[in-house]
Formats: sequence, C-alpha cells, structure tokens
Amino acid sequence: MRTLEHPDRNSISLDGVLFALSDPTRRKIVRQLADGPPAQYCSQFALPISLSTQTHHFRVLREAGVIEQRYQGTAIVAALRSEDLTTRVPGLLEAILAAERAENPPN
Amino acid sequence: MRTLEHPDRNSISLDGVLFALSDPTRRKIVRQLADGPPAQYCSQFALPISLSTQTHHFRVLREAGVIEQRYQGTAIVAALRSEDLTTRVPGLLEAILAAERAENPPN
Repeated sequence: MRTLEHPDRNSISLDGVLFALSDPTRRKIVRQLADGPPAQYCSQFALPISLSTQTHHFRVLREAGVIEQRYQGTAIVAALRSEDLTTRVPGLLEAILAAERAENPPN
Repeated sequence: MRTLEHPDRNSISLDGVLFALSDPTRRKIVRQLADGPPAQYCSQFALPISLSTQTHHFRVLREAGVIEQRYQGTAIVAALRSEDLTTRVPGLLEAILAAERAENPPN
C-alpha cells in the first residue's frame, strides 16, 4: 500500500504551519476540511487552479503537518490534523479560520 | 520628517501577517516587542544576523502591518500593532506567541 510522508506531531513546526497557512488557496482547503466532513477526497475540492498546483498545495499542507493524506484505492483522502495542531499550537487554527471567514464570508 | 510606509488597519491581510510570522527571526522580534517596553529601538535587538538582514525582517513585519516603525531623530523605533492585529485577526498573535514561548523557552 502506498503511503505519503507526514511529520510526526513533535516535528510540526510553527515556521511550517504559518508558512503553509499564509497562502489563500491553502487556507481555502483547510476551511473546507474544517467546515465539512472530517475526511474528504482531494479531487472534490472546487479550486480554480490546475491539478498540479492543487497537488502542490495539498503537499505543502501535509508536509507542514496541517493535514493528513492517505490513499483510498487510487484516490487520495485528506483530513485536518486538528488534534495535533491544537496540541502544538493551541488556538492558532481557530484564530486563522475565524479571520478567514471574516475576510471571505460564505456566499 | 522622514516617515515609513505602513498599511492601514483595513489593508492588513491574513496572507501578509502569516507569512511575516512564519520566520523565526521575525517571531523573535515580535516576541521581544511583546515582552518588553511597547516601543524599542530597532538597533537594540540582539539578533545574530547582519544589519541588512535585520532591516529586511523589520520591513517585512512593517509592510505586513505587524509592527510600526518611526524615526526618532536618526534612530528607528519599533512597536507592535497589537490593537490593529487584535481587531483584524483576534487571538492570532497570542496563539503564536504562546507557541513560540513553548518552542523556545526563555533561558
């Protein structure tokens, strides 16, 4: 079974998490994961970007420890690592999501 | 009187703030401002980097709206824009500073 590399909880750094979340597309992905079902197919994010750019953004989030990705058959499923993030950086994700929702209210 | 450019409160973006704070040296500057007197001379930050790199980091923080800088004679003084940040991104600075202190406890 193919697996994707993830940092373990203690390797999640503030540098990586903040950089990953400094991009609006990546925050959009995180917001969809926070607002929807806990695990979602990566192919079902409606982002106005090419597939390779999308893959890149998911990888940056995964390598920073913000999301996990796993194969489900040939598809890839993503989920927020909420518990790991809350442990490493309490309150950060909530603050960013709240600001993101205020900056970009749902239609 | 020379002045330095700052974004007004409503122009402070989550992208800029998160990117500015994704660098450990810039977080060190922010932490020193948060833990010390509200306004501090830029020249009095003991950072193990060249003066030009230090100037660069202060500028990134200023252009993101995280700090303000103003001339005092020929010296430059920096201060955190705590109120503006709390208005734009409530809880963010506190969460980042708490994580920063946990990652790098004071000696």
